Amino acid sequence: MPSTNRQLILQSRPKGMLAPGDLQLKETSLPELKDGQALARVKYLSIDPTMRIWMAMDSYLPAVQIGGVMRALGFAEIVESRHPDYKKGDRVTGETGLQDYLVLEANASQRFIQKVPKIPFVSDTVFLGTLGINGLTAYFGMEIGAPKKGETLVVSAAAGATGSIAGQIGKIRGCRVVGIAGSDEKCNWVTRDLGFDAAINYKHPDWKAKLAAAVPNGIDIDFENVGGEIMNAVLDLMNLHGRVVVCGLISGYTKEDPGLASFGIVLVKRLRVEGFIILDYASRFMEAATQLGQWKMFGKIKDRETIVEGLEKAPDAINMLFTGGNTGKLIVKL
Amino acid sequence: MPSTNRQLILQSRPKGMLAPGDLQLKETSLPELKDGQALARVKYLSIDPTMRIWMAMDSYLPAVQIGGVMRALGFAEIVESRHPDYKKGDRVTGETGLQDYLVLEANASQRFIQKVPKIPFVSDTVFLGTLGINGLTAYFGMEIGAPKKGETLVVSAAAGATGSIAGQIGKIRGCRVVGIAGSDEKCNWVTRDLGFDAAINYKHPDWKAKLAAAVPNGIDIDFENVGGEIMNAVLDLMNLHGRVVVCGLISGYTKEDPGLASFGIVLVKRLRVEGFIILDYASRFMEAATQLGQWKMFGKIKDRETIVEGLEKAPDAINMLFTGGNTGKLIVKL
Repeated sequence: MPSTNRQLILQSRPKGMLAPGDLQLKETSLPELKDGQALARVKYLSIDPTMRIWMAMDSYLPAVQIGGVMRALGFAEIVESRHPDYKKGDRVTGETGLQDYLVLEANASQRFIQKVPKIPFVSDTVFLGTLGINGLTAYFGMEIGAPKKGETLVVSAAAGATGSIAGQIGKIRGCRVVGIAGSDEKCNWVTRDLGFDAAINYKHPDWKAKLAAAVPNGIDIDFENVGGEIMNAVLDLMNLHGRVVVCGLISGYTKEDPGLASFGIVLVKRLRVEGFIILDYASRFMEAATQLGQWKMFGKIKDRETIVEGLEKAPDAINMLFTGGNTGKLIVKL
Repeated sequence: MPSTNRQLILQSRPKGMLAPGDLQLKETSLPELKDGQALARVKYLSIDPTMRIWMAMDSYLPAVQIGGVMRALGFAEIVESRHPDYKKGDRVTGETGLQDYLVLEANASQRFIQKVPKIPFVSDTVFLGTLGINGLTAYFGMEIGAPKKGETLVVSAAAGATGSIAGQIGKIRGCRVVGIAGSDEKCNWVTRDLGFDAAINYKHPDWKAKLAAAVPNGIDIDFENVGGEIMNAVLDLMNLHGRVVVCGLISGYTKEDPGLASFGIVLVKRLRVEGFIILDYASRFMEAATQLGQWKMFGKIKDRETIVEGLEKAPDAINMLFTGGNTGKLIVKL
């Protein structure tokens, strides 16, 4: 059994982007396993925008404590067990934290730990992305969006792990789907590979006119991941009784929340704007994962990963989310 | 039959508050009635914040045309008729416009004109307020708010025509109801006469702390009439899965829309924010009016009016809405 662990400890709450030292790598010794415990080796870490919120403040979960291991979802394999539910070789996902090893306690459900199967021909990381936080978020978010055939859906951060799946669910539901992303390469990916009807690179100076041209019938559903100026531009094109699914507001995570200038349109266009967090849907995760798995198996949902190697790179990886460095699911491989 | 009419004509779209001359009084001659027409004498005009929107821009209704009679709801009495549906003495409400007389055409439904009965012991103006635009707006808005017994409802512009009724419906539904208004006198009215549990004068420097103290269990429903800074303060106190009924955003009607600084809370608290316009509920107006009438009859809903006399005072009356000059329903009596 290994005797040392490496952990990324939250030393200070970031202002803006993560600064060197906000997360500090620390070597700790692993205790002997007691009865009822199991030791899991973390193999993949899920890098998600919401981690930046966890570092900064209490929100839908309490903030990570200063001095504590940084919270993260991950995929791990049991390497030793005195726990009745786990045996060596079992594979789990859940809140592993940014560390090499995780000790599972008797009541491991506190960390949302779930056993997962080995699926032939599919990478284990699918449990972090398409069958994990991103797929589930896209699934329940699109349920809130309530798409009807022929409606127009706009997805911001369209080449991100969640946005790319939300848009593909929109296609499955018969919508015209338009993505917004930060590079031509990302736009090409979502249109050519994922089947979006159009994609707009918001770094082009005339992107708002292009967005308007891409939604000739207006916008019925905004699957919003970004907030701020991008959300305003989408809201300005919303149709009567449109739905705004507030999945993320990433533009406000590393700088002062820009607020929402175009809020008045909620009244004039009678919009329904709804924020959600997938933890509220925990009792329906199996339903969603089953459906997502089927879609993936039949090629209705495709995904892509950006892999960063090494635990020590996790802080840089978190920052990548806010500079647009990743396409699809961002993973740190240990 | 009278031969002259006085009309308030929209001469220019206001910037900020109405300026002298934005609406200009004009004397016009009344044509002879043709077959299928009726002439109605306008007796009361309903003065509503939404009129400021109608003057400025296309919204849920097209903007009033420059040179056209200013749109307004009102109460009128038929003085002469060659119309099959109306006889002299019939009483109607609907879109009368800011004028002394209204010619009803064959297809009067274009102006939302409806015949109304004479109710003993009740002022005719009830059809403009509690059984009119304000009662209906409060009724359907509170349906969107979906109050549950024991929840906390906050109503902004609580002493206004709509807010005062929305709060009373909240009491009927078993909520703790807290109003926000712009004077101690208004706060006293809604607590002493209307039964609100508390009311906060937002002109007191420490009003935000007082609001927080008045909602010890947080806020489940925001019946929002104001927007801007007041709405932000309410949002900051919302509970998980709270509902924000966007009925009006009056703080943005006479100055640049302030937007919404606290929008991020929609995500963190998983709020449902919904804009609505009562025209969407036209098919259910009778249901709502019947219920509102019953509540009024049994004293469950009380109302108050601020009456301004004279058509020429209508522009000042519209401005009163934005300076807090009225308590309850604001009416211009002709």
